[in-house]
Amino acid sequence: MKGVFLTLEGGEGCGKSTQLELVASALRLRSGRNVVATRSPGGTPAAEKIRTILKSREPGEELRPETELMLFGACHAQMCANLIRPALESGSVVVSDRFTDSTLVYQGVARGIDPDAVRRVNDFVCAGVRPDLVIVLDVPVEVGLRRAAVRSGAQTAQDRFDSESASFHNAVREGFLALARREPGRFAVVDGAQSPEQVTESILEAIHERLAII
Amino acid sequence: MKGVFLTLEGGEGCGKSTQLELVASALRLRSGRNVVATRSPGGTPAAEKIRTILKSREPGEELRPETELMLFGACHAQMCANLIRPALESGSVVVSDRFTDSTLVYQGVARGIDPDAVRRVNDFVCAGVRPDLVIVLDVPVEVGLRRAAVRSGAQTAQDRFDSESASFHNAVREGFLALARREPGRFAVVDGAQSPEQVTESILEAIHERLAII
Repeated sequence: MKGVFLTLEGGEGCGKSTQLELVASALRLRSGRNVVATRSPGGTPAAEKIRTILKSREPGEELRPETELMLFGACHAQMCANLIRPALESGSVVVSDRFTDSTLVYQGVARGIDPDAVRRVNDFVCAGVRPDLVIVLDVPVEVGLRRAAVRSGAQTAQDRFDSESASFHNAVREGFLALARREPGRFAVVDGAQSPEQVTESILEAIHERLAII
Repeated sequence: MKGVFLTLEGGEGCGKSTQLELVASALRLRSGRNVVATRSPGGTPAAEKIRTILKSREPGEELRPETELMLFGACHAQMCANLIRPALESGSVVVSDRFTDSTLVYQGVARGIDPDAVRRVNDFVCAGVRPDLVIVLDVPVEVGLRRAAVRSGAQTAQDRFDSESASFHNAVREGFLALARREPGRFAVVDGAQSPEQVTESILEAIHERLAII
């Protein structure tokens, strides 16, 4: 495939969504290529519908970890077949706010599903679509939760912090860093505690170093 | 688990939904047990939400076979954990209109996904929940499609028949019969072309012969 596929990963409040737009804009200017910005879960009409089930907190019942894994798998199957693969085949640059590495970390590490089972689902639904570069935006758990709290209008970081345990958020952070250590050639860890402008520059630097598009 | 789990399977217009209520009522009377009637996809609030995505024909894009497999897997994970397993543990009889054998036949045979991949998903999400008896309601494809057409208000069976090819419906019918031949001890094939009352009696007879609940 002629295109390039980048993903932004990391825990809550790491700055992925902000960076998605900043990085996509910069790549449009500097690479001269068509750039598609998307997100997981979501990105296609059907996948966005599935996203609402995943994000809904009032379905009348809790979603099981296995159910979440299947719903993320469903989103990724639609995304890969209907959005990412066609874009890559036409030579575009695709940047996604989260992708299958989030599934691996959230469902496989933090929710306790066997990581090999998560990998099998990811491989099955992606059918060969794989990020060329995964940017992990790393921030200390307290920093990420404080940002997320401000964004959601919670009174204090504590409100949001309480919704998941500290050990959960630490497991998520450690999970992303472990993936990066495992595949240093395909992952780049960026300090997400810098200013947004600095983070964008660090991401573009990593892209410049690893890929031949800017 | 102290309970008993039965499923009704078969192609379009085979009479599953009609039989679900008739069989559940008869089992309530004759077995003296609590009987839970459910359906796949669906059966719990979250699974019913997922059902609407699977049944919707206007999501703005076609669902991929792999996406359908994941969505059925998500429904079955919720059903098994939150409805079927607790019911079986409390000694109830559970009767479901379709379950994982439909996924095996529709996604694995008729839609062309590797049946072993479908089996792995089914086993993963069910985590040991498995029908004690699968009733296959077998009807010739033309009969089933004529019934489905009447139900949906289509002018002729042809309207509905055209929506999927004849070879698709034949593959579905043959798929269920092949599963029954493979596990004759756990499957019973019932002639679904009989009158509804006769079909109910045939199903109850199969239950009586195979299970010790009536």
